[in-house]
Amino acid sequence: MPIYNAPLKDMDFILNDVFKADEFWQANENFAHIDMATANAILEEMAKFSKNVILDLNRSADEAGGAQFNQGEVSTPEGFKEAFQQFADGGWIGLGAEEQWGGQGMPKMLTVLADEMIWSTNPSFMLYPLLTVGAGMAINDRASELQKQTFLPKLYTGEWSGTMCLTEPHSGTDLGLIKTKAEPNADGSYNITGTKIFITSGEHDLCENIIHLVLAKTPNAPAGSRGISLFIVPKFLLNEAGQLGERNAVSAGSIEHKMGIKGSATCVMNFDGAQGYMVGNENEGLAGMFVMMNYERLSMGIQGIGAAEFAYQNAAQYATDRLQGRAATGVQSPEKPADSILVHGDVRRMLLNIKSNNEASRAFAVYVGQQLDITKFSTDAEAVRKANDRVALLTPIAKAYLTDKALDSALEAQMCFGGHGYIREWGMEQCIRDLRIAQIYEGTNAVQAIDLIGRKTTKCQGAFIAEYIAEIREFVATMDECSVKTATASVCDQVEALTQFIVEQAQTQADFSNAVAVDYLHSVGLLSFTYMFARIRQAASLKAESFYQNKLVLADYYIAKVLPDLAARIARIHAGSTLIMQLPEEYFTAQA
Amino acid sequence: MPIYNAPLKDMDFILNDVFKADEFWQANENFAHIDMATANAILEEMAKFSKNVILDLNRSADEAGGAQFNQGEVSTPEGFKEAFQQFADGGWIGLGAEEQWGGQGMPKMLTVLADEMIWSTNPSFMLYPLLTVGAGMAINDRASELQKQTFLPKLYTGEWSGTMCLTEPHSGTDLGLIKTKAEPNADGSYNITGTKIFITSGEHDLCENIIHLVLAKTPNAPAGSRGISLFIVPKFLLNEAGQLGERNAVSAGSIEHKMGIKGSATCVMNFDGAQGYMVGNENEGLAGMFVMMNYERLSMGIQGIGAAEFAYQNAAQYATDRLQGRAATGVQSPEKPADSILVHGDVRRMLLNIKSNNEASRAFAVYVGQQLDITKFSTDAEAVRKANDRVALLTPIAKAYLTDKALDSALEAQMCFGGHGYIREWGMEQCIRDLRIAQIYEGTNAVQAIDLIGRKTTKCQGAFIAEYIAEIREFVATMDECSVKTATASVCDQVEALTQFIVEQAQTQADFSNAVAVDYLHSVGLLSFTYMFARIRQAASLKAESFYQNKLVLADYYIAKVLPDLAARIARIHAGSTLIMQLPEEYFTAQA
Repeated sequence: MPIYNAPLKDMDFILNDVFKADEFWQANENFAHIDMATANAILEEMAKFSKNVILDLNRSADEAGGAQFNQGEVSTPEGFKEAFQQFADGGWIGLGAEEQWGGQGMPKMLTVLADEMIWSTNPSFMLYPLLTVGAGMAINDRASELQKQTFLPKLYTGEWSGTMCLTEPHSGTDLGLIKTKAEPNADGSYNITGTKIFITSGEHDLCENIIHLVLAKTPNAPAGSRGISLFIVPKFLLNEAGQLGERNAVSAGSIEHKMGIKGSATCVMNFDGAQGYMVGNENEGLAGMFVMMNYERLSMGIQGIGAAEFAYQNAAQYATDRLQGRAATGVQSPEKPADSILVHGDVRRMLLNIKSNNEASRAFAVYVGQQLDITKFSTDAEAVRKANDRVALLTPIAKAYLTDKALDSALEAQMCFGGHGYIREWGMEQCIRDLRIAQIYEGTNAVQAIDLIGRKTTKCQGAFIAEYIAEIREFVATMDECSVKTATASVCDQVEALTQFIVEQAQTQADFSNAVAVDYLHSVGLLSFTYMFARIRQAASLKAESFYQNKLVLADYYIAKVLPDLAARIARIHAGSTLIMQLPEEYFTAQA
Repeated sequence: MPIYNAPLKDMDFILNDVFKADEFWQANENFAHIDMATANAILEEMAKFSKNVILDLNRSADEAGGAQFNQGEVSTPEGFKEAFQQFADGGWIGLGAEEQWGGQGMPKMLTVLADEMIWSTNPSFMLYPLLTVGAGMAINDRASELQKQTFLPKLYTGEWSGTMCLTEPHSGTDLGLIKTKAEPNADGSYNITGTKIFITSGEHDLCENIIHLVLAKTPNAPAGSRGISLFIVPKFLLNEAGQLGERNAVSAGSIEHKMGIKGSATCVMNFDGAQGYMVGNENEGLAGMFVMMNYERLSMGIQGIGAAEFAYQNAAQYATDRLQGRAATGVQSPEKPADSILVHGDVRRMLLNIKSNNEASRAFAVYVGQQLDITKFSTDAEAVRKANDRVALLTPIAKAYLTDKALDSALEAQMCFGGHGYIREWGMEQCIRDLRIAQIYEGTNAVQAIDLIGRKTTKCQGAFIAEYIAEIREFVATMDECSVKTATASVCDQVEALTQFIVEQAQTQADFSNAVAVDYLHSVGLLSFTYMFARIRQAASLKAESFYQNKLVLADYYIAKVLPDLAARIARIHAGSTLIMQLPEEYFTAQA
C-alpha cells in the first residue's frame, strides 16, 4: 500500500526559517491568534488526519470506481461520509475563513501547507471542501450581509457545501458564450435555466444542502463576458426560519467518467427554472466568480505539490527497497543479491528532480500565501498594492507551472518503479491519473500562460515582473557569494531582457504573445524557483545539521540540472510566432 | 467516438520519396516480391482493418475492464477473438516473417508502417500478435530445424501464439537474479519450475496453444546472466504426430490490474515442473532472448508513433470543431459565435509539436527498418557490419526517445481538448494510459539510455556514433543552403563534441555515464530527428504541391522550436554526476 508522512520538518523550515512567519505574524495584530507553535500544532493534527483517515480511502475509492450516480442521486465512495464529518468537526473547512462566520482565520501561508497534505493523500476528497471554501470566499467578498449570515456559517460547519457553476457544453474558456438564463421574479429572486457541465461536487451525499454559485445572463444583458451575473442557487430552498424547505429545480443529470479523481463527483447540472438569488451587482458576476477562481487556481498548484510529494515518498522508498544490479563504482551491498537501485545515477537524478521541484514549489506556495495575507491584512496601502500585483503576476505560475512540474515529477516517480509503477497496486498510476486534471481545470495551463503574458505582462508593459525582479535582486544583494547567487542574478537579467523583448514584439504582432505564452510561463517559473532556492539556501546555510546542509546541495542541483531549461525556453520565444501561424487552418486536418 | 485515418500519403512519401524504397528493393533480389505498388496495397488493406475492425474494439475493451481472469482462464474482451481470426486469416501475423515458414517475407521498412496503424487503433490487440512474432524471431534464429518446423508455421497462422517469460518478482532489469529452474529429464527435455510476472498474453482465449519462451537456470549453471538458458514451454504438449496433447504444468495465477492496455492480458505465470525444450546452447539463453527483445524494442517505438498519430488526428479535429474565443488578430469567423481554437497560437504550437514529432518518428522507424533489412538481406559484408552497428546504436533511440516524445505528444493532444480530454468519452485519456507502458516495458527508457551510453558508446569509444555522424554529414553535403542544413551540420558538431566529452569523463568516473544517460539519449534523439527532417526537407523540396511545401515549414518549425532542447541537455551533461552521487542513500528517505 502507498505510504505518506507529512513533511513537517520541511514545512517548519519554510515557514520559520525561510519566511520568518513568527516575525511576520507578530508584526500584525490581525495575527495575534497565531504563532509557530500553534502553526506546528495545526500541521501535526492535519498530518494525522491525512495519514490515518483519508490516505487509504484514496485507493479504495478509485478501486470501487469512485462516486456513483443513480437517478439523480450521487453516492460518494465508502468512508467519505465519515471522513468528511470528522474533517468538518475538526474545523478544517473554515481553517482560513473569517472568524466572524465560524472560520478559524488562519493565514494563507499556513493553510497552503495543511491543504498540501490533503492533496497528497486524497485529492478526490479534497475537492468537496475546496469548492465549499471557494464559494464561501466569493460570498464573503460579494454577497449581501443577509446572504453572508445565511450561508457562510453553514458552509464552514460542513452542514452545507458549495459549487461553482461556470462551464457549459459549448462554453469553457470563453465564458462570454454562456446561455444559462436568469429571469427576474417579482420577489427579487430569479429563475435560473440552463445546463452546466463539469460541476465538481454538484451532487453528493456528504451534506444536507448544496449551495451552487451560478453564472447566468439576465434578460437584455450585454453580449459576451460583460453581461454575466452571479447567483446563489441552493439545492434545497430555505424557509422563512432559514431551515431547509422544498427541493429547488436543480438536479444532476449524470456524472462524468474520468481519467482520475474518480471519488470526486463531476456532474452535469440541470437548472430548470431553479430559484436563485443574485450576488453583487448585475453584470458583474464574472469578477465575483474570479475571487473564487484565483483561490482555486492557487489550490491547483498545491494539488501539484501534494501529488508530487506523495509520488516522491513512495518512489524513494521503493528505490531504497528494490535490489537490482550493482553500482557502477563497485558492489555496495555484498551481503545482498544486488544493490539498491539508489546506487544508479539515473534513479537519483529522477528523485532529485522531484525533490528539488517539491521544495521549491512548497516554498513558492508559502510565498504566494504570504502575499495573499498581506493583501488581506496589511494596513500599509503600498504594501497591499504591491502584494496584489505580485499575486496577480504569480497566480498563473502557481496554477500552471507548479502543476506542469508536478506531472513531470509524478511521471519520473512512476518510472522509478519500472513495471510495478504501471500496475494499480502501488498507487503511482492513480497518482498520475488524479493529478493530470490539475493542469486542465480552473483554466487550462495554456489559459494561465496567456493570462500571464497578456493581462499580467504586456498590458502593464512588464511593470509587475519588473517589481518582482527588483525584489529578487534586493534579496540577491544580501547573499554570500555562491553558485546560487550568481545564477539568480543571471536569471533576473535574462528574464528582464526576455520580458522587454516580448513587450516590444507584442506591440507589432497581435498573435505573438499567445504563440510563446507557455514558454514565457516556464521562464517565469524557472525564475521563481531559482529565487526560492536562493531563499532556501540562505536560510539553510545558517545551520550546520545535515538536514540543512543537504539543502545547499539540492539548491546546487537545481541550478546545474534543472535551470538549463531556461535557455531553451528563451530560444523558442526568440523564434517567434511566424512559423506557428503561417500554415492554413486546413493544414492541420488534411489527410496525410 | 475517436477517429482514425491511416496517414497513407505520408507513409508513401517516406517510403518512396525520402528513402527511395523502390530503388532499394530493386537493387536486391531478395526483394523481388515487393515494390511500391505492392507496399501501398498492403498499407491500404491494413488501413481498412485498423479503422474498420479494431478501432472501436479499443474503447469497448477498456470500458468493459479489459481482459478477465477466472480460475486460471483468461477471456479477452468482446470482439477480440473475431478480430484476431480475421487478422490471422489476412496473413498479417507473418507479414515480415520468413516465407519458408508461412510468412510473407515483407521488408521491415514496410512492416513498421503497417504496425503503426495497429498501434494507433488498438494497442492492447497489437500485443497478442506482437509477442508471437517476437517468439517466432527467436525460434527462427536459435532453435533446431525440428523446433522451427514444429512451431513457426503454427505461430504465423495464428493457431498458436507466443510469449516471452523473463521477469520474476525480484528480477526485472537484472535478469542475472532469476530463480526459475530447469531440471533435465532423461528424454532431453527439462522440467521448468518458477514464477514469471508481467507476461503479456501469458494466457488468453484467442488461440488453441500458447508457446512460452522461458529463461531459466539449469543445475550448476554459472551465477548471474551467464548462467541463463532459453526454453520452449508449450501450454499444451504435442503428441508424436505433432497434435495437441495433454496440458503442460504451466498456468496463469492471476492477471495484473493496470493503468492501461487493459485488453492485453498481463499474467503471472506459474511453472510447476512444466515440460520444456532447450533452445540453442545451454547458458546462452539471454542472447537468444535478445533477438526477440531488440525486435520488441523497435516495436515499442512504433507504439509511440501510433499513439501520437491517433492523438494528433483527434486533437486536430477537435481544435478545428471547437469554437471558443476570438483570434488575437481579429475575428476570423464572424458568422460563428466564436472562432475555432485553431486561431490560437498555443493550440497550433501543441499540434505542430506533435506533428513534427510524428513525421520525424515515422521517418526514423523506416530508417531503422531499412538498416534491419540491410543486416538481413544484403550480401555486402561491410554494409551489413555498418547496418548492424547502426541498429545497435539506434535501437535505444527507437525504443526510448520515440516513446518519451510520444507521451509528450499525447499529453499535449489531451490538453487541446481542455476538460473534454480528461473524460473517457473522447478517448484521449485512454490513449495516454495505454501509451505510458511503452516507456516502461521491454527495458525502461532509463535502461535504454544506459545501454546507449555504455555498450553502444563508451565501450566502443564512440565509434558507432562517429560513423552515424559521418553519414549525416555526407547527406548534409548534398543539401542546398537552408536553415535545416545549417542546423543539422551544427548538431553533428555538438553531438560529436558531447560524445567525446562523455567518453573522456567515463574513463575516470565510473558513475558518470549512468547519471547523464537520459540526457545523452535525448541528445542523440534530437540529432536523429534533425537528420530525419534534413532528409524529409530534401525530398519535399523537389515537389511544388502544398502537401510537400508545408513539410518545409514543419522542418523549420522543428529546428526553431524543438531543437533548442539540445542546449539544455548538453548543459546538464556538462554539469556531471557529482551533485547526483554525493548525497548519502539515507537522504532520500529521511523524514522531511
